[in-house]
Amino acid sequence: MDGSDSDDLDHLFSETVRETKGGSVYGAWRSIRDADAVPLSFGFPYPESFPNDELVSAAESLFEYEGDCALQYGGGEYADALPEVIADRARDRGIDCTTSQLHLTNGATNAIDTVCQTFLDPGDTVFVESPTFMGALRLFRNYGVDIEGCEMDADGLDVGALADELAAREAAGEPLPKLLYTIPNFHNPTGVTLSEGRRRRLLELAETYDFVVLEDDPYGQLRYDGSEPPPIRALDRTGRAIRANTFSKTVAPGVRTGWIIAEESFVEQFERINAGGEPSYTRGLIARYAEDGRLERAIEELCAGYRERRDRMMESLTERMPAGTTWSDPDGGFFVWVEFPEGVDAEAMLPDAIDEGVTYLPGSFFYADDGGTRHARLSFSHASPAEIDEGVAALAAAVRAETPPVEADD
Amino acid sequence: MDGSDSDDLDHLFSETVRETKGGSVYGAWRSIRDADAVPLSFGFPYPESFPNDELVSAAESLFEYEGDCALQYGGGEYADALPEVIADRARDRGIDCTTSQLHLTNGATNAIDTVCQTFLDPGDTVFVESPTFMGALRLFRNYGVDIEGCEMDADGLDVGALADELAAREAAGEPLPKLLYTIPNFHNPTGVTLSEGRRRRLLELAETYDFVVLEDDPYGQLRYDGSEPPPIRALDRTGRAIRANTFSKTVAPGVRTGWIIAEESFVEQFERINAGGEPSYTRGLIARYAEDGRLERAIEELCAGYRERRDRMMESLTERMPAGTTWSDPDGGFFVWVEFPEGVDAEAMLPDAIDEGVTYLPGSFFYADDGGTRHARLSFSHASPAEIDEGVAALAAAVRAETPPVEADD
Repeated sequence: MDGSDSDDLDHLFSETVRETKGGSVYGAWRSIRDADAVPLSFGFPYPESFPNDELVSAAESLFEYEGDCALQYGGGEYADALPEVIADRARDRGIDCTTSQLHLTNGATNAIDTVCQTFLDPGDTVFVESPTFMGALRLFRNYGVDIEGCEMDADGLDVGALADELAAREAAGEPLPKLLYTIPNFHNPTGVTLSEGRRRRLLELAETYDFVVLEDDPYGQLRYDGSEPPPIRALDRTGRAIRANTFSKTVAPGVRTGWIIAEESFVEQFERINAGGEPSYTRGLIARYAEDGRLERAIEELCAGYRERRDRMMESLTERMPAGTTWSDPDGGFFVWVEFPEGVDAEAMLPDAIDEGVTYLPGSFFYADDGGTRHARLSFSHASPAEIDEGVAALAAAVRAETPPVEADD
Repeated sequence: MDGSDSDDLDHLFSETVRETKGGSVYGAWRSIRDADAVPLSFGFPYPESFPNDELVSAAESLFEYEGDCALQYGGGEYADALPEVIADRARDRGIDCTTSQLHLTNGATNAIDTVCQTFLDPGDTVFVESPTFMGALRLFRNYGVDIEGCEMDADGLDVGALADELAAREAAGEPLPKLLYTIPNFHNPTGVTLSEGRRRRLLELAETYDFVVLEDDPYGQLRYDGSEPPPIRALDRTGRAIRANTFSKTVAPGVRTGWIIAEESFVEQFERINAGGEPSYTRGLIARYAEDGRLERAIEELCAGYRERRDRMMESLTERMPAGTTWSDPDGGFFVWVEFPEGVDAEAMLPDAIDEGVTYLPGSFFYADDGGTRHARLSFSHASPAEIDEGVAALAAAVRAETPPVEADD
C-alpha cells in the first residue's frame, strides 16, 4: 500500500464527496480542544454530572435480569422497552407519540443525517437559522444542497422575515426549501427560544410552501427559568414536523443514543435506510438506568448544576466585559451568544484569548456563508462556576486588548 | 398529527427513497425470529459466548481509571487507544496499517454504509457475489445503484468469470463497476473462502478496470481448520482495497463497534462525512476489555465453541439429510449453504419447516435478482450442539415431505 499514489483515486468518490471534500473548520477545533485554558468553547456537560456509578449498577442488574440477551443482536427486554420510555416522555411534553412514530438513532447527529438521507437530493434547498449548529451545517453540506440562512432575533427564528423570503422566492420562481432546520429551545449557538406564536406560524408556512420542519431539541429539558412553549411536533397537524432528540445531554454524550419522532410513513423510511447499527447494549443500559424516575431526578440535578453556571456566567459578563459588548439571555441550555465591540474579529482574537486563559467558538463557525465575525459562542456547561468567572475575566482582557480605551463617562 | 394524511407527503422524499421505498424481506424476518423452533436462521453468536461479567468489570475499572472522561464527548484514554488496538491486530494479520488509515464505525453495517456514501452515485454499478449478505444488498439498494451478481464456486468469487464479464462489458461499452463487494472469509451465506491466487487476481482486475474492492471480513478470525489466506487489504499495492470489520462477532453484537481500514485519503472522507456519532463509552469499554490479551483468549474460546457446533452440524447433515441434498464445507465462520433436491422451494417450505421445529433463511434472500430458490443458509453459531442436531432432523423431515421417496438402492 505504501507504493500507491492514492490521490489518483479521488475520481472514484461520489459526485457530492468530490464537490464538498474541501475545507472544514474541524481542524481549528483541535487547537481549541488542546488549549491550556478555561473551556468556554464546546458544549460538553460538566464532568461531575455523569452517572458513572449508576451505569455500572445498571449494567450489573441488566446482565443479572436479562442474562445472555443484553449483548445479543436486538438486545433483551430493556432494549425493547426503550422506545416506550421515550414515547412516554414525549407524551409528557404534549407530543402524541406511539412507538411506530419513533426511530432510534446513534445520537442527534445521526438523527439529522438520517433525515437528510431520507429527504434531500443534491441541489435541493435547505433553510437554517443564521447562525446555527455547525455540526448540522457540516451534515447538510455532505448532501450537496444549497444552504440558506434565515434571520433570527431575541425570540428565535424571525418567522415574519421568513414568510417574506418565501413569498419573494415564489414570486421570482426561485427554489423553495425542501426542509427547514431549527433549534427552537435554547438555540445553539445563540441561547434564544422560539416563541409559541412563531412555532405555529412556521408550521403554517411549511404547509403553504410544502417543506418539512426538522426540530432539533437536545436542550429542551434543561430549562432554568420560565415555562416551556409546546414542542413544534406537539403543535403540528400537518405531519410536516420531524423532531430529533438525544440522551447525550440528559444521561451522557458517551452513551450516544438519540431518536426521531415523526409521521409513521416517515419513520418507515428511516427504519428502512437505517445503517447506524443497533447498539442494543447501550439501549438496554439507558432503559434500565431510566427506571423508577431516576432520569427525572437526574434532570432536576442537572438543571440545578447548569443554572448555577448560567447565573455565574451572566454575573461575570455584567461585571467584567468592557462597554460595547452585549450578550443573549438564555433561559436554559448550554450557550450564551456574545457580540463584541466594533473592530473585534472573534476568530482573529482567539489565539490571544487562549493566551489570556480562555477558549470559545468564534461566531463565524456557525454561519453557512459569511457572518458572525464579531460574535462568539460561550458555553457555560463545561467549566465550574469559579472557572467560568476566570474565563470571562480572561475574555474581557482579550477584548480590551483589541479595542481602544473607553471614555471614563461612557 | 392524527388528522393528517401523511401519504400526501411522500413527494418530499429524496429521489432514491421514492424509487426504492417498496419491498423488503425484513418483514419475513419477524415470523422467523418469533418462531418456536431451533434457530438455524440468523447469524447470532451463541448466548454463553457473551462476556457479561468481563464487561461489568471493564466498566468498573474504566470509570475508576478515567473518572469523568469515560462518558464525555470523545471519551478518555481507553477510547483514544482503541484505534491503536485495532491497528495492532490488523498488523498481526499482515496489514500495514496506521491509525490514520483507520476509521471507527458503529458496526460493520455502518462501515459498509459509509463506503457507499463516499463512493456511490445513483446509477453507478456495484458488483456483488451471488449470493451475498442480504444486509449489504439492502444498503446498496438505498443508494440507487445497479447491483450485479458475480458467480461463485467452492473457492469463492469466480475471478476468471469476473474477468470475462468485465472484458465483455468494456467491449460492449456497458457500465463497469465502481465498487466490488466481497466477503472473502467464510462467506455469508455460503461459508466458502476466497483463495489467495484469486485475491491477487481480483486486485489486478480492480486496477485494470478502475474500481474499489470492499472486503467485508466479520468472520475471518473465527477459523476452525486450515490456515488463513492474507487479507485482500494486505495484498493490495494499488490503494483500492477497503476493509470493513467489526467486534460484533468477537466481543458481542450489542457493543456495535466496527471499523474501516483504507488509504488515508479515503479515511479523510469517511471521517468528514461520518455522522454515526461517537459512542466513546463503548469504545473505552472494548479497549479496556481487550487489554492483556483478553480478546485473543476470548477468540480461542469462541473458536472452540463454534468448531464444536460446526462439526455437529456437518455430522447431522451427513447423517440425516435425504439423498440429493448437498452442502458447503466451511472452515470457519457461522454458515453452511445447503442445496435441496430438485423440486424443493426453500421459501415455500419454510412454514412447514417451522412446524417441524427449525428455522433457516431461504437462499432467495441473498440474491440481488432471482436465484437461490433451492438453497438455504443454515447458521450453526446460535443453537447448542444438541439443538443443532434436532434442527437438522426437523429440516430433513421437512425436505422429505416435499420430495418423492427415494429408491431403497439409491
